[in-house]
Amino acid sequence: MKLTEIRDLYENREAYLDQKVTVGGWIRSIRDSKTFGFIVLNDGTFFEPLQVVYHDKMDNFAQVCKLNVGTAVIVTGTLVATPQAKQPFEIQADSVEVEGASSPDYPLQKKRHSFEYLRTISHLRPRTNTFQAVFRVRSLTAYALHKFFQERGFVYVHTPLITGSDCEGAGEMFRVTTLDMENVPKTEEGHVDYSKDFFGKETSLTVSGQLNAEAYAQAFRNVYTFGPTFRAENSNTTRHAAEFWMLEPEMAFADLEDDMMLAEAMLKYVINYVLEHAPEEMNFFNSFVDKGLLDRLHNVVSSEFAKITYTEAIELLEKENDRFEYKVSWGTDLQTEHERYLTEEVFKRPIFVTDYPKEIKAFYMKQNDDGKTVAAVDCLVPGIGEIIGGSQREDDHDKLLARMREVGMKEEEYGFYLDLRKYGSTRHAGFGLGFERCIMYLTGMSNIRDVIPFPRTVNNCDL
Amino acid sequence: MKLTEIRDLYENREAYLDQKVTVGGWIRSIRDSKTFGFIVLNDGTFFEPLQVVYHDKMDNFAQVCKLNVGTAVIVTGTLVATPQAKQPFEIQADSVEVEGASSPDYPLQKKRHSFEYLRTISHLRPRTNTFQAVFRVRSLTAYALHKFFQERGFVYVHTPLITGSDCEGAGEMFRVTTLDMENVPKTEEGHVDYSKDFFGKETSLTVSGQLNAEAYAQAFRNVYTFGPTFRAENSNTTRHAAEFWMLEPEMAFADLEDDMMLAEAMLKYVINYVLEHAPEEMNFFNSFVDKGLLDRLHNVVSSEFAKITYTEAIELLEKENDRFEYKVSWGTDLQTEHERYLTEEVFKRPIFVTDYPKEIKAFYMKQNDDGKTVAAVDCLVPGIGEIIGGSQREDDHDKLLARMREVGMKEEEYGFYLDLRKYGSTRHAGFGLGFERCIMYLTGMSNIRDVIPFPRTVNNCDL
Repeated sequence: MKLTEIRDLYENREAYLDQKVTVGGWIRSIRDSKTFGFIVLNDGTFFEPLQVVYHDKMDNFAQVCKLNVGTAVIVTGTLVATPQAKQPFEIQADSVEVEGASSPDYPLQKKRHSFEYLRTISHLRPRTNTFQAVFRVRSLTAYALHKFFQERGFVYVHTPLITGSDCEGAGEMFRVTTLDMENVPKTEEGHVDYSKDFFGKETSLTVSGQLNAEAYAQAFRNVYTFGPTFRAENSNTTRHAAEFWMLEPEMAFADLEDDMMLAEAMLKYVINYVLEHAPEEMNFFNSFVDKGLLDRLHNVVSSEFAKITYTEAIELLEKENDRFEYKVSWGTDLQTEHERYLTEEVFKRPIFVTDYPKEIKAFYMKQNDDGKTVAAVDCLVPGIGEIIGGSQREDDHDKLLARMREVGMKEEEYGFYLDLRKYGSTRHAGFGLGFERCIMYLTGMSNIRDVIPFPRTVNNCDL
Repeated sequence: MKLTEIRDLYENREAYLDQKVTVGGWIRSIRDSKTFGFIVLNDGTFFEPLQVVYHDKMDNFAQVCKLNVGTAVIVTGTLVATPQAKQPFEIQADSVEVEGASSPDYPLQKKRHSFEYLRTISHLRPRTNTFQAVFRVRSLTAYALHKFFQERGFVYVHTPLITGSDCEGAGEMFRVTTLDMENVPKTEEGHVDYSKDFFGKETSLTVSGQLNAEAYAQAFRNVYTFGPTFRAENSNTTRHAAEFWMLEPEMAFADLEDDMMLAEAMLKYVINYVLEHAPEEMNFFNSFVDKGLLDRLHNVVSSEFAKITYTEAIELLEKENDRFEYKVSWGTDLQTEHERYLTEEVFKRPIFVTDYPKEIKAFYMKQNDDGKTVAAVDCLVPGIGEIIGGSQREDDHDKLLARMREVGMKEEEYGFYLDLRKYGSTRHAGFGLGFERCIMYLTGMSNIRDVIPFPRTVNNCDL
């Protein structure tokens, strides 16, 4: 059916003014006087709603007056400019047809609801201003990431979600199985007989696509993977979810400098894209969710990111240990309080911290000549701390194998990964961007549950 | 590091001819005479390789002559036109530096390998012509789908992968659990105690994001979801994988006609995008994988898709029952042989078949007034049969509930889905495109294992 989108009315208003249009949408609010009434209509295509004025010359005027919030209607009328009003135009309706009724118990009445309550109706909350804005920005951000990498010739690789290995031992994993849980088959020794499982072995949900992406970088040079990842961690915080999306680019013939250049260009690109394509939503966040948001984002876009080594960072932080809950010294991992101090107080812009002690970083990171550090990089941004973690990868077969043995990995499971260092190894680098953390950063939303359409957390897998 | 991409040399050759360039890539083949040699170099950025000529005036000439296939090298030299040769230009090398050696046991020697063998080295096969082509086309197709929907204002929704419901009972599901399999906790009645599981209940991997996407369509009007889906079916065929990607758009204020228009526009868009952005790859497939491929795709792009009802299709097919392994009559589901006959022999172009018997379709499809059929649509294309399945959804609360009871669903698990019919229901429609089937269609590849980077099938979860 041919309905004009409200976005189209706003973007091409000159073409529609004083013309007949037909729109369809959901009633956000409705009120009437004796002979006329107002409907605030949203059709989901645009953040701003459309005001509809209806009159008692309509046959169904009395019925329309009684419509409940949430009702789906199709409105035909004339778009007229309203220079004196808050909104630029309104529809003078000839007809208001009910597409689907709503009822007085509709949970989204005009009053403001708490985010906590809205989480309990995750199928309805995208109909509110805040979540319309959040999930349109999420969609635009995902697309901006694709656009950034595709324009640069990166190949999008769908790395697998079900995996037989545990990548870097990055966290607790969810088991994937078709075994009968009521009656788990056992071997003669009394252990679970995974040979009877779907894949003939133990399998889990992936915690990272990086190792697979590395294989593709050694074929396509520049690749990225973007998909769901999982952590079965029992952490009930505002920053952890059991299922989340991660973006992981990987480049062959690239070192840590290349990695940082890519990360900086990507972040700036994504921020600019969202500012340009969702100005109404971003203004809303700036006004109602996070007052400093736009200043902070504009500052990131116009800054050159700073760079310091971990060792330099520790020197800076040690002088200020008094102010920190967790005291730092060389060898300790940085906490969010340290990261935010560096990026917000010391540098007042995003920074890259490089060359961390190898003990606090993953086995696959390239070992520096000092024997103590690895070519890791974290990108820290004001307001959030770490947003990106990456590294140059160890490309030397023997060093990689030695490190794997040091940390007690089963090398037989990583034959393919070692192969990449046997057959035309290249210096290569990549990073991971937690997509939800990126959305929180772009919107100012402070709970990860509020940037995932249907969040999965400990004891919560609704809808 | 600054290396010129081979794609850039091909696309901007005039700017590079007779200039010094530095490229990095992997040796596909190498041969030498006494005083000079040839390297065929691929860097993954472009389907066509680059010929490198090296001479004995180089200090490491003897070493270079002994390099193995697969070696990663960095070559500096002058790009010169070769008007008499097969390739348009070559590099006359000043230097060839080894970035990473390869060894004589490198599995990808110059000889042609079977797809079966290459499946056993899924980390290396993207270095071959066929899989370079397949996985670049896969990346471009994914992007084309995003671009198509984003340009039309559709909101990309990440529907959840871990789910507590079983959608339409669409197939066997993988369980997701953190329970100790060696010692599964039991209730007093002796059943598995899922209250101790991570989410406090039974959870599985999703078979479709549709129901969740419907909730978002009732907020944003036009949405799509594109992500991994899972089937734990024990079917070892060339068309089934346990993990695959699915694209599912969903539109509010839309009926079956709108659904078909969207599907046709999307397929044509994607085909055109791939033909335009991967001409070398598509020519390769047409020459070496599937001779009729380009003709078939051009035919689809320039055809208006035909439309018939299921009932009409059965009338056509019943006359030809002799030729089919499975005989049809009204009420039977269509098999691939019937679908291909209709699209290849009868119509010679893509067709939409609509209005199937409700018994062979899912519970959520809109019931037609005849009481026998539902507003379903399958899109059939020459060479493959069904590529898209969709429907208008039942938007009437009571009819939906009655059908759910008829087919024995637990209505308490679908409260959110019924809510969508209580609070501003709209006519709405959507479809599902199996992404791998789409890639097979675009490339002519005949085994789903060869269009997924790291395929997961029964008893196979390698790498």
